Amino acid sequence: MLRIYHIEARRSDRVVWLMEELGLDYELIFTPKDIAASLMAIKAVHPIGAAPTVRDGDLWLCESGAILEYVVNRHGGGRFGVKPDAPGYPQYLQWMHFAEGSAMGRIINEMMIAPMLAASGAPKPPIAGLFAGNSRRLLDFFEQSLAGQDYFAGEDFSAADIMMLMPVRAARRACQGEVRPNVEAWCARVEARPAYARMLARALPNGPPPTLAGWPKEDAQPV
Amino acid sequence: MLRIYHIEARRSDRVVWLMEELGLDYELIFTPKDIAASLMAIKAVHPIGAAPTVRDGDLWLCESGAILEYVVNRHGGGRFGVKPDAPGYPQYLQWMHFAEGSAMGRIINEMMIAPMLAASGAPKPPIAGLFAGNSRRLLDFFEQSLAGQDYFAGEDFSAADIMMLMPVRAARRACQGEVRPNVEAWCARVEARPAYARMLARALPNGPPPTLAGWPKEDAQPV
Repeated sequence: MLRIYHIEARRSDRVVWLMEELGLDYELIFTPKDIAASLMAIKAVHPIGAAPTVRDGDLWLCESGAILEYVVNRHGGGRFGVKPDAPGYPQYLQWMHFAEGSAMGRIINEMMIAPMLAASGAPKPPIAGLFAGNSRRLLDFFEQSLAGQDYFAGEDFSAADIMMLMPVRAARRACQGEVRPNVEAWCARVEARPAYARMLARALPNGPPPTLAGWPKEDAQPV
Repeated sequence: MLRIYHIEARRSDRVVWLMEELGLDYELIFTPKDIAASLMAIKAVHPIGAAPTVRDGDLWLCESGAILEYVVNRHGGGRFGVKPDAPGYPQYLQWMHFAEGSAMGRIINEMMIAPMLAASGAPKPPIAGLFAGNSRRLLDFFEQSLAGQDYFAGEDFSAADIMMLMPVRAARRACQGEVRPNVEAWCARVEARPAYARMLARALPNGPPPTLAGWPKEDAQPV
């Protein structure tokens, strides 16, 4: 049985959500949201100390995108994945990687790092200017990519939608008050899934993460 | 034919390297290393403006990890990929995602963002302390993961090695003077590949990126 090292309101939500979608049993090692404590808890068992980390027999695996692909193809019979010969495969791959590759870093740079640099009162380093508008640019890209399709990889819900909810919510928070109809409809669609509700009950017992509040500093990648 | 939008010394090297490994033709849209100019060049054709971006007929795709998987499975007949039933599959997935998911962000936080915050002279925000030691921790994880195996996914060279060279070099630069024998041997092994030399000639005509100099600021993710 898959053991999931989980920290509340971090990327390990994604693994719990996929397990609930697939109806697979799992063991949840739950750590309440607390950066210092949670890092120590997972560093005690794995050198990187990230959430999610999973253990499956003798195998240890970290990195949410990798874990979702692993579960889909080794435990889920391919459900919620997209096969190489399917039309949605390129988009599936792009969003599986984009969520953590380009999206989260750019949003964090704009919403956390740039304000820290600004608050320092020092002359603004030239690179900080490049962060401005990241979240809006991403949100526009998501909006355009969801035109005429219900999910990120096309007609069907997939693991790519699970990967993308965090950066989509973060970009929406950053651009609060601005409406992107395709993005709003997609959020409502994925958040209405019964497996999403079961994930919330198990992985976020203290309530879902804020949707339209300011970017919470403690949500940042801690290391 | 795949058209690769490439900026010198950025992540688009990876796509060129894989195409050279596979012996596939490609069209290279080359932009010399210059952040402002290169961003504008790619933003003119794609909303995110990242390197790599590729065009394949009517399809546009960004994100290096996704592009490598796409090329492996749609153009390369699966060569340099690892199939779900192969023993190295979990590791292959982990490193394909880890390179940009956890590794590069953590190194950039330690080597660029923390020094910017320190140079500002402002009181250090608590989160900055969490960045310290990131690169050393990563390098130790790489060293341990390469024990008893020649490549990141096991016995055979794969796209995961192409993904990992950039974060491995960055972590080595950050810990210069410290020796990790498995990591050193792996670097020598992958950099000795004829396709790597062909990539350097086409994608880095002004010389390879520095190996042991200080972390070059202009190598950062620009947005």
